[in-house]
Amino acid sequence: MEEHKKWLLEAIRISEQGFKMGKGGPFGAIIVKNGQVVGRGWNQVTSTMDPTAHAEVVAIRDACGFLKNFQLDDCIVYTSCEPCPMCLGAIYWARPKAIYYANTRDNAAAIGFDDSFIYDEIPKAVEDRSIPTIHIPCEEAWEVFKEWQNKSDKISY
Amino acid sequence: MEEHKKWLLEAIRISEQGFKMGKGGPFGAIIVKNGQVVGRGWNQVTSTMDPTAHAEVVAIRDACGFLKNFQLDDCIVYTSCEPCPMCLGAIYWARPKAIYYANTRDNAAAIGFDDSFIYDEIPKAVEDRSIPTIHIPCEEAWEVFKEWQNKSDKISY
Repeated sequence: MEEHKKWLLEAIRISEQGFKMGKGGPFGAIIVKNGQVVGRGWNQVTSTMDPTAHAEVVAIRDACGFLKNFQLDDCIVYTSCEPCPMCLGAIYWARPKAIYYANTRDNAAAIGFDDSFIYDEIPKAVEDRSIPTIHIPCEEAWEVFKEWQNKSDKISY
Repeated sequence: MEEHKKWLLEAIRISEQGFKMGKGGPFGAIIVKNGQVVGRGWNQVTSTMDPTAHAEVVAIRDACGFLKNFQLDDCIVYTSCEPCPMCLGAIYWARPKAIYYANTRDNAAAIGFDDSFIYDEIPKAVEDRSIPTIHIPCEEAWEVFKEWQNKSDKISY
């Protein structure tokens, strides 16, 4: 646990550094593989005008670029705050072996971030969500999926 | 509805173009504001080694860069497939006014994509998730949040 706490403190350190340099919100993340840091990220939403530039997403992109892989095999994500649903989704797609976090979604809500609200929205039926979400079934869309399915040289992820 | 279907067919068109050019999975998205396309994206996970490069995330980044804003005020997201939780989270952070989609998460699962599995994981208690997720409370992390809260010139998002 001492080892994990050490890496978590590093993620917390860059969460502070990032916001004090005016990069964005107070969030930091690092990705560690076999005891080595392979990716780092801090929130950059307001400085890069990118709502997806959360610490974990930035760290995943950094680590995947470094590892030249779209999977974080055998990696551990350390984040200064419980991932929001976007970041948690990103982590599931990247498939690391574990996640360690310090602050919680409730701590984030307490300082004005929507994490907890979005956690409530995601599992709702499409028609009950706060952003109007409309399904228009299109035969054309399913045709494209079928073409993908029949593609012999596709790279799955 | 004719107008919305038209934009959805454009998102479907780029979903096909993207995967046939070897960019990644069969997904496309466009973002429209006041009847104008302001952002476009297609899945680029396997070509850019970025697990976050889903169509919607790419389109949001494209539109926000174009609009020079981290919010998609008055924008509509058209996507060839129901957003996965990562993309839905990204959409909530970007705050467009509506989402239209064609294929569903079940259609995506039918051709081998994890969307439905991740939808099941997100609402679970942290300790019940398939990726081991460990909370280590750290006073240092909460101190950083408090510093953010006391920052007088912070940009909220």
